[in-house]
Amino acid sequence: MKLLSVGTVAFDALETPFGKRDRIVGGSCTYISLSASYFLNDLGLVSVVGDDFPQETINLLENKSINLEGLQIKQGEKTFFWSGKYHNDMNTRDTLDTQLNVLENFDPIIPESFKNPEYVMLGNLVPALQLKVLDRLENTPKLVVLDTMNLWMDVALEDLKKVLKRVDLLTINDEEARQLSGEYSLRKAARIILDMGPKYLIIKKGEHGALLFHGENIFYVPALPLEEVFDPTGAGDTFAGGFIGYLSATDDISFENMKRAVVMGSAMASFCVEKFGPERMENLTQEEINDRIAQFKKLTDFTMNYEFA
Amino acid sequence: MKLLSVGTVAFDALETPFGKRDRIVGGSCTYISLSASYFLNDLGLVSVVGDDFPQETINLLENKSINLEGLQIKQGEKTFFWSGKYHNDMNTRDTLDTQLNVLENFDPIIPESFKNPEYVMLGNLVPALQLKVLDRLENTPKLVVLDTMNLWMDVALEDLKKVLKRVDLLTINDEEARQLSGEYSLRKAARIILDMGPKYLIIKKGEHGALLFHGENIFYVPALPLEEVFDPTGAGDTFAGGFIGYLSATDDISFENMKRAVVMGSAMASFCVEKFGPERMENLTQEEINDRIAQFKKLTDFTMNYEFA
Repeated sequence: MKLLSVGTVAFDALETPFGKRDRIVGGSCTYISLSASYFLNDLGLVSVVGDDFPQETINLLENKSINLEGLQIKQGEKTFFWSGKYHNDMNTRDTLDTQLNVLENFDPIIPESFKNPEYVMLGNLVPALQLKVLDRLENTPKLVVLDTMNLWMDVALEDLKKVLKRVDLLTINDEEARQLSGEYSLRKAARIILDMGPKYLIIKKGEHGALLFHGENIFYVPALPLEEVFDPTGAGDTFAGGFIGYLSATDDISFENMKRAVVMGSAMASFCVEKFGPERMENLTQEEINDRIAQFKKLTDFTMNYEFA
Repeated sequence: MKLLSVGTVAFDALETPFGKRDRIVGGSCTYISLSASYFLNDLGLVSVVGDDFPQETINLLENKSINLEGLQIKQGEKTFFWSGKYHNDMNTRDTLDTQLNVLENFDPIIPESFKNPEYVMLGNLVPALQLKVLDRLENTPKLVVLDTMNLWMDVALEDLKKVLKRVDLLTINDEEARQLSGEYSLRKAARIILDMGPKYLIIKKGEHGALLFHGENIFYVPALPLEEVFDPTGAGDTFAGGFIGYLSATDDISFENMKRAVVMGSAMASFCVEKFGPERMENLTQEEINDRIAQFKKLTDFTMNYEFA
């Protein structure tokens, strides 16, 4: 298997300044898989849902060539539910409700055909479960990418530190990088986090773009200035999915190619926020993606040959 | 004259998480002129100080080939004084004290040899005085750049709107763009502000970089991720000085060249914040500037030739 993604498949209730949705499909692994599916068709998902999860969404994911053999469907149980409300600036949100449901006793069983993935994307999940997934693989993948969040820094820091030692790349947002490192300067924070294990670090800054760190190398891709951000939910996971999807499809983990993957992740995330939930990610065309990549190039491209007089 | 800069020359008292300075030289026109002086030597300054202003600084500015014929020195009066304290995030600050002193009755007299500038930089100042400067010019400059701040949107909006109709380019920060336009989305804000008069708009986002808007064209240069920002004071003015200094030295106001000027402004600003006040801007070398431009190029440069399988 080329790419294995692990994380949550969920129901979300969302409220943004642009509207409200009571119960739509969400979850880190949903966004990751959908986004990655535009780049390759050899990808599998490991997650869990209840028997309330819509067959329609399962069909949609299968139509995107996402292998769902690793999706456990628990009869008589309910799907993980998260509810949140975004502030006017869209960069901050309050969690209104979290119902773990099937996640409470989730045991991430890896199907036989999933046990030798070349690339692994550990979407946001309890660090102990992310560790369990790594333990259950038979090979050492070419690249393991980890996403996590501030909650696990608060309640499961020791487990998180163990996972960090076993992954190649970490993606977190700027506030989380500051919390994890104890440093305000992102450049200093990056150095400390890279000492915790991963060789690469991506710091996501929402509307301000994303930074890729590797040793003393830094790459910065801005976010595309959009007319409106309707719903930021899943943008970080969509970024991760585009990043790992592009990397595994091109099968090149050089820093130069990771830069391209960061741009691709940013392009995919810029679509995600244009509609509620994963809606915009369901029917993208390759032309739309190519066109957006061209916009990113145009947005940041400059030549400079100045000679001082 | 190639470049005329108008604005304040001041004393500042500053406090940042990294230290404190009780009384150092500051002011919009000081930073603008110092920054622009690295690109051309035909530039003049129009401002006012009291007899308490240090001869040492006047000598420094003159050594940078800045023409000070338009700097009024008011005997028996005191220089404009501003005092501020930065919060831990360095992006927000409180004004602790403002003593207008010589600014209270400032009449911006333009020396004869200053009256036909090719480029004009109107640094942050009461909009009525910025208007007066434009009224007193004999020619129509190739490009007039305006900097302003939220204070004037609060207390002198009508005058500010009059100035906006008469300038080619406006530079403001993101919060100010939101205030002036009433729109949260910077892309929407830009459209509204460009309808107010200027053909070009630069939105400065501090550590998150800067955006250049012209019609439907957008260019985004990130800020260089620095180990530490010691003091953000004057960074916006230094940006403006580098921008207009580069533009006037190359004498090319195409969008392509404005993109380069935005990068140059960002490079100059990245030096400014490395030390307190204008200290770092006093003795830059051309090698240091070239090296930083190369860092900006490296920071954002990518190639992308992806074909979907």
